[in-house]
Amino acid sequence: MKQLPLLTALSCAVLLPAQANDIIHDAEFGILKRQHAQEWQRQDLEVDKKLAEIRKTNGDKRPNIVYFLVDDLSYGQMGNRKMNHVMGVSTKNINDFANQSLSLERMYTEPSCTPTRAAMMTGRHPIRSGSSEVKVTLVGEGLSKDEVTIAEVLSASGYNTAHIGKWHQGDIEESYPHNQGFDFAAFPAHQQVQLSLMTKEAALANNLFGWNESMQNNDFVIDQTFRPNGMVTGLEAKKGGLATEVHMPAGHEWSQADYHAMNVRYQEQALEQLELLADSDKPFYMQYWPLYPLNFVHDQTPNKTRNGGFMVEKLQLLDTWFGEFTAKLDSLGISDNTIVILMADNGLMYHYGGPSGLSQLIYRGGKTDFLEGGIRTDAYVRWPGVIEENSAASDIIHVSDLFTTIARIGQATDNIPRDRVIDGIDQTALLLEGEHNGRRDYVYVYQNEILAAVVKNEFKMHTPTAGMPGAAAPVFNVYRDPREENPHIGMALWSGASFQDMIKRHVMTIQKYPHLPLGKDAPYSGIVNLRPETQKLVEDFNSWH
Amino acid sequence: MKQLPLLTALSCAVLLPAQANDIIHDAEFGILKRQHAQEWQRQDLEVDKKLAEIRKTNGDKRPNIVYFLVDDLSYGQMGNRKMNHVMGVSTKNINDFANQSLSLERMYTEPSCTPTRAAMMTGRHPIRSGSSEVKVTLVGEGLSKDEVTIAEVLSASGYNTAHIGKWHQGDIEESYPHNQGFDFAAFPAHQQVQLSLMTKEAALANNLFGWNESMQNNDFVIDQTFRPNGMVTGLEAKKGGLATEVHMPAGHEWSQADYHAMNVRYQEQALEQLELLADSDKPFYMQYWPLYPLNFVHDQTPNKTRNGGFMVEKLQLLDTWFGEFTAKLDSLGISDNTIVILMADNGLMYHYGGPSGLSQLIYRGGKTDFLEGGIRTDAYVRWPGVIEENSAASDIIHVSDLFTTIARIGQATDNIPRDRVIDGIDQTALLLEGEHNGRRDYVYVYQNEILAAVVKNEFKMHTPTAGMPGAAAPVFNVYRDPREENPHIGMALWSGASFQDMIKRHVMTIQKYPHLPLGKDAPYSGIVNLRPETQKLVEDFNSWH
Repeated sequence: MKQLPLLTALSCAVLLPAQANDIIHDAEFGILKRQHAQEWQRQDLEVDKKLAEIRKTNGDKRPNIVYFLVDDLSYGQMGNRKMNHVMGVSTKNINDFANQSLSLERMYTEPSCTPTRAAMMTGRHPIRSGSSEVKVTLVGEGLSKDEVTIAEVLSASGYNTAHIGKWHQGDIEESYPHNQGFDFAAFPAHQQVQLSLMTKEAALANNLFGWNESMQNNDFVIDQTFRPNGMVTGLEAKKGGLATEVHMPAGHEWSQADYHAMNVRYQEQALEQLELLADSDKPFYMQYWPLYPLNFVHDQTPNKTRNGGFMVEKLQLLDTWFGEFTAKLDSLGISDNTIVILMADNGLMYHYGGPSGLSQLIYRGGKTDFLEGGIRTDAYVRWPGVIEENSAASDIIHVSDLFTTIARIGQATDNIPRDRVIDGIDQTALLLEGEHNGRRDYVYVYQNEILAAVVKNEFKMHTPTAGMPGAAAPVFNVYRDPREENPHIGMALWSGASFQDMIKRHVMTIQKYPHLPLGKDAPYSGIVNLRPETQKLVEDFNSWH
Repeated sequence: MKQLPLLTALSCAVLLPAQANDIIHDAEFGILKRQHAQEWQRQDLEVDKKLAEIRKTNGDKRPNIVYFLVDDLSYGQMGNRKMNHVMGVSTKNINDFANQSLSLERMYTEPSCTPTRAAMMTGRHPIRSGSSEVKVTLVGEGLSKDEVTIAEVLSASGYNTAHIGKWHQGDIEESYPHNQGFDFAAFPAHQQVQLSLMTKEAALANNLFGWNESMQNNDFVIDQTFRPNGMVTGLEAKKGGLATEVHMPAGHEWSQADYHAMNVRYQEQALEQLELLADSDKPFYMQYWPLYPLNFVHDQTPNKTRNGGFMVEKLQLLDTWFGEFTAKLDSLGISDNTIVILMADNGLMYHYGGPSGLSQLIYRGGKTDFLEGGIRTDAYVRWPGVIEENSAASDIIHVSDLFTTIARIGQATDNIPRDRVIDGIDQTALLLEGEHNGRRDYVYVYQNEILAAVVKNEFKMHTPTAGMPGAAAPVFNVYRDPREENPHIGMALWSGASFQDMIKRHVMTIQKYPHLPLGKDAPYSGIVNLRPETQKLVEDFNSWH
């Protein structure tokens, strides 16, 4: 267990001049704060008053918070009936939820699973914690114990915490969710490439080539370790304990049926956890990060959607499950004092366009892209009686802002570390007061470790490639050209210079607060029941590491 | 005035076997009817009963019908808040209206103004009436007096009729709306290329090149007639009368201010007409076809939208005007017995992407394209208490279906001619009973006179280019690949053959019922006050004609 930063009795209100206990933000936020400090300070007092009133009406209990994070869907693919018609799917439960919520129409994420989840967990751009890159097999790396997660922040202030589903923050002990602040965690050690793509069914469905040895001509194969076999599947653990691999006998060949069963199990466990958590006097933070809709094989059941693609079919199933989930909140009588956030982690996995049924709808690109299609997702926040239902905001928000905002709402801001840059801006005013109350007008867009684009208001610069003069960097207006196809270039020479200033400030912040390293350890450390095939895989890994 | 087909006392219900008075549809509809005749016959009896009950509750008055047709907007650009956020515009009135309506999510139009409007007016693919092509200057052509328009169909059965705004069906007397069934008409002789693009302001705004002589180097100009000067602008007339050009003094140079004033005038006249029509014992059919949002010059007023593009700004204005229009229906107390249809005539004019502010959002392409972006538009139908509010349907519907459907609702089906092919299918059951009650699963997509694509259910074949084997024709699934970027080709060999059968049937229908010619006459016939510059233009035209 890591050391949490010292708790302090001081309030977290923005004060003038900056106090020693202020959260350290990127320099760009300082530019905004300098222009709006008094107004925000005044508004923060109102927000605090409102939060106190809400607690009072709930018997002094702080709100529960549920974070429902869906994998790989682009903006427009959740919560909008019109887009349902375009896609040939009908996600009534999600749409109804969206209509009860504030729609954050400019939610920016990172372009892929690991970085988005790291950003939300730590409130920091993943580059700062070494978590930018996505891993698909053994790495012996993961989220560092020195990072402070939202689960740790809330846990230290008295929240119960639980994690169910995809985690994807590494394969070493310190990175596991139960060592990052969660009281209970059920999660796969890796992600869906292993669980749904590296299967014989995916090869037969022509969605995977070359992994399954029995379907290859193995002439000239003299390296038996190239194809990873025996990776750990599903894990479960309690806070600070050791993890156990579950439902995976030694020697068993993982199949699509196992993957489906794992999905079903997470849904069941999510509902079970809700029951347990609702029964406590303490408020809870729970995150449920389903593996579906990501999958790579049509499971041969009759199509429920007009679309019929294997990912869209699972989106339809997820809608049913999401409906069960919100119904459970209702039946437990906790919907009113529970904030539910529903969003996706990044754009669609368009590399499987066609048979998957998902396609770029509005913004261009998808997962792994710095284009809007990669980093814009639907995001809905419901808080009955507090957040205006069926409202929407075009204020810019970044997934890391949820860290700071949730901490604020949970009265745990003091647990946010003050020794490092926190990119997440407190957007509580936006949630409570609605559109035009956002405090961010910029996003630094990373693709792995490369700063690939910078957003400011409606303008977006794709950072110049090596050797290209800054004046030639393409600048887009995302309202007029949402697909980023027709750069202003010459017409935007003024903004090129202003964008360069933003990058300079960003780099100065990094120089002052250098990035921290990713955690390193033996892969699968902290797991009690490694199978023989897993032990062999670890030995192979260790032989060259 | 043309001869209307004989009225007949027989009902229009679908009977088995086909009766002499059946509407003649394309062969493809026959394929459907053969499979569903009994079921549709039964449903039609219920629909007739329901329509009779509605009339009864309205003092035996048939419903008024308003057709509000917006120029050049693609699917998603009207009536959806989420898309508003994407575009940076806020069309609250249109969105509210959409929420009170049935959204027809698969409304197909023709790919351009003249053909879509001709299809709706006649219930026929424009190829059948020679109206496929779009004209921008003098042509001496137009919708034939032998075509029977929805205004004539309804007028003959006792409706008052009025047309306000864009018409674009030709520059000859027989083609004018007051000679095609409208009691009153206020309309420009041509369209917006003349009215907003062929101006000095558009040249200064870099949206027009080469038309304005004062901004050209006229070296070597030996033909003074290449640039059309002196075209007729706004016309007004009463049924069967002569037309008068209004608000255009001789010698005046048309400007963006004149264009704006014309738009304002049409809005005022639309409201005035509503007042007059509401005051009659007879029901009315009114169509208001605004010229905005199409325009080509930012008019220097401060932006109202985040987008700020010159077309998006006018879309915002149109939202205000649409709100005034529906408020007028309310204040006249006629909203309940008035069906209001709101849609666009075809996809966006993406050729002005960037400064116009409009861009392809979901479907690829726009005006002039046979791609979904050219021929799919938002379409909303409101009929309070009859059509389920806030409902949506993915049944395929084509703009020509409105002709037949409106005739049915207005009890004027017997006035539909029985001597020619009517492409419009009666979709009354879809409007009244909602999704899954449509009677069309196909669209023949023409680009001018070329059959460019064929739609059947979710499949769309781009017709093979000359010399290409039918088996190589690209076939798309519009749910899985809405942008039509990844054809099935080999995977869709079965559908290639079925699509060829559809085309064969279509061609057989044409052979049996050949296309009728476009009307021809002297340009500007039937206008009483041609200006001297207009007379010169006509003389130039006649010199080679």
